[in-house]
Amino acid sequence: MLTRIDHVGVACRSLDAAVERYEGVFGLTVVSRELIEEQGVKEAMLVVSGSPHASYVQLLEPLSPQTPVGRFLEKRGEGIHHIGYAVASVTDALETIGGRGVRLIDSRPRHGSMGASIAFLHPGDLGGVLTELVQPAASA
Amino acid sequence: MLTRIDHVGVACRSLDAAVERYEGVFGLTVVSRELIEEQGVKEAMLVVSGSPHASYVQLLEPLSPQTPVGRFLEKRGEGIHHIGYAVASVTDALETIGGRGVRLIDSRPRHGSMGASIAFLHPGDLGGVLTELVQPAASA
Repeated sequence: MLTRIDHVGVACRSLDAAVERYEGVFGLTVVSRELIEEQGVKEAMLVVSGSPHASYVQLLEPLSPQTPVGRFLEKRGEGIHHIGYAVASVTDALETIGGRGVRLIDSRPRHGSMGASIAFLHPGDLGGVLTELVQPAASA
Repeated sequence: MLTRIDHVGVACRSLDAAVERYEGVFGLTVVSRELIEEQGVKEAMLVVSGSPHASYVQLLEPLSPQTPVGRFLEKRGEGIHHIGYAVASVTDALETIGGRGVRLIDSRPRHGSMGASIAFLHPGDLGGVLTELVQPAASA
């Protein structure tokens, strides 16, 4: 069902500072910057490995303290926020995983980074790990 | 320098329960189980995508509360502990990254999962992200 690790999501206070760090320390390159109002974040995707096995570091700065990433920063500080796995179909994966007793934060796919369809699973049923399913725009 | 996301490391109270969860919910398969005294953990590696672009979920149960993962559980609870990136040479990557002002937890490579050479970088210089460099045993 999971075909690869699509990305690791990292919560940061300053997106610009975090981008500078990942570019400067690891030589990674930003391939996308987006503001996603619905999720209350501005973000940058930096590519670690390329197509067709693409994986990314996703840096996330909250638009306000009253957002999921804002609350995470308040409670835990900067650090790894979630892990995203690629799937062939988010709809199919949600049906399978929901049927196995895992609570779904998103019961149907919604808009994610770079045109992907995504859905989050509840960390309370996954050992504290906020887990995202990602169906890339050009399904890989 | 980073060639792919090698693994995501997840701290858990019970390795057996966590393995059962990842097998049952996501259909992942355990490819290695090890007890690494030096790091104070017993662990299981579950494969997400295969060779030559292998990536894994690494489940970590501490051998005692007085270990790095034990202290993490005490402070933060279960959840994502670190991220591991594959590199061609840990020695070369440490030299480059250390030269860029990042504190090294391991100044030279040591033994990691499945015969890999690994080293950890200090999260205090990386936006709270505990970061591991991984040079696989059969260098990919």
